[in-house]
Amino acid sequence: MRNAYHEELSGIGRGLVDMARFSAQAVERATAALLDSDLPTAEQIIAEDARLDGMHHDLENRAITLLARQQPVATDLRLVVTSLRMGTDLERAGDLAQHVAKLTRLRYPESVIPQELRPIVRDMGRLAKELMLKTAEVLDARDVDLALTLEGDDDQMDLLHRELFQHMIDGRWKHGIETAVDVTLCGRYYERFADHAVEVAKRVVFLVTGEHADDFVVES
Amino acid sequence: MRNAYHEELSGIGRGLVDMARFSAQAVERATAALLDSDLPTAEQIIAEDARLDGMHHDLENRAITLLARQQPVATDLRLVVTSLRMGTDLERAGDLAQHVAKLTRLRYPESVIPQELRPIVRDMGRLAKELMLKTAEVLDARDVDLALTLEGDDDQMDLLHRELFQHMIDGRWKHGIETAVDVTLCGRYYERFADHAVEVAKRVVFLVTGEHADDFVVES
Repeated sequence: MRNAYHEELSGIGRGLVDMARFSAQAVERATAALLDSDLPTAEQIIAEDARLDGMHHDLENRAITLLARQQPVATDLRLVVTSLRMGTDLERAGDLAQHVAKLTRLRYPESVIPQELRPIVRDMGRLAKELMLKTAEVLDARDVDLALTLEGDDDQMDLLHRELFQHMIDGRWKHGIETAVDVTLCGRYYERFADHAVEVAKRVVFLVTGEHADDFVVES
Repeated sequence: MRNAYHEELSGIGRGLVDMARFSAQAVERATAALLDSDLPTAEQIIAEDARLDGMHHDLENRAITLLARQQPVATDLRLVVTSLRMGTDLERAGDLAQHVAKLTRLRYPESVIPQELRPIVRDMGRLAKELMLKTAEVLDARDVDLALTLEGDDDQMDLLHRELFQHMIDGRWKHGIETAVDVTLCGRYYERFADHAVEVAKRVVFLVTGEHADDFVVES
């Protein structure tokens, strides 16, 4: 019984790692499609989000089956409940990558991102992918030290996000309001994507140590 | 034992209703503060979001206690797991009301919303509140018929959202890029707030009928 239990539990863990890797790849490809105005890739990302939803659905069913069959208590119960919460974060991150792809499709064949903002958006996309790959690794290896580095990465994302806005409001904007609206939404998608990655990593820290990641950061 | 069980289960239900009502009130007050550039009210909403987080925390603890003590299976287990998910939606809705209040604070004493957009934003705020109050009622009374009306309200929110963008990009915008960025984010906050209300109501439909709300809407 215990073996079946640990097998089911690690199945949930693997499901989360797979979802995180899938989201990381989605945001990487969505960024490339955004910068290249690549419609076929954008369409593919939009269609493939259903796979992530399916992974999330499977994860929930695994968790419910485990709760029903094994009736875990204490730490193990909290682990399963937290996994459900992390699954929601990861599905949502995938939605945000899909939103980037939808903006690309909406403006095609025009480019969403003006020339001078491309380096910032490229950096935001790269950072979003890296954050999520780290989160996958944190989930896989229960690596608390790695989890704590995500806060720094997220600060960097906030800096890029502010830089993006600064470019728009410095009085030299020549791209009209519609592009400003698109860039604003795009920046928000990347920022929220990163938030979800950090949120999942923080939950792993809490599961492993019983302490909230924020407490660590204050001390370090 | 069964009595204690049903007591615990209805405690979770009441917790969700309270969270929905709290979020509805938060978005109503946040909209008033936004339109009146009312800093004290905005500050209060920002501070009081911690109460909603506390309600969510309590709800999670109740759910975990119930799972550990009563070890529900089948429908009841799915009810508890779905309640956890709904709690996350409702907490997030409160965050979005808080974001509206933070925009108000950021631009104070200036107004975030230009004069000609005030009617649309007022309508978005009113609709967001009404959607969430309906969701509270749906949670309280398991009212599937009422839940199905939320899709129509959400369509109305999407229309208002599009109208807001249309105003910005019709070529007569005189308020600069910074205001366009603010209005874009604000519109997004209301739209997402409504999404969370609809999401919770859909989950109630699924719990009560075993069918997804979308299937109903197609039939009706």
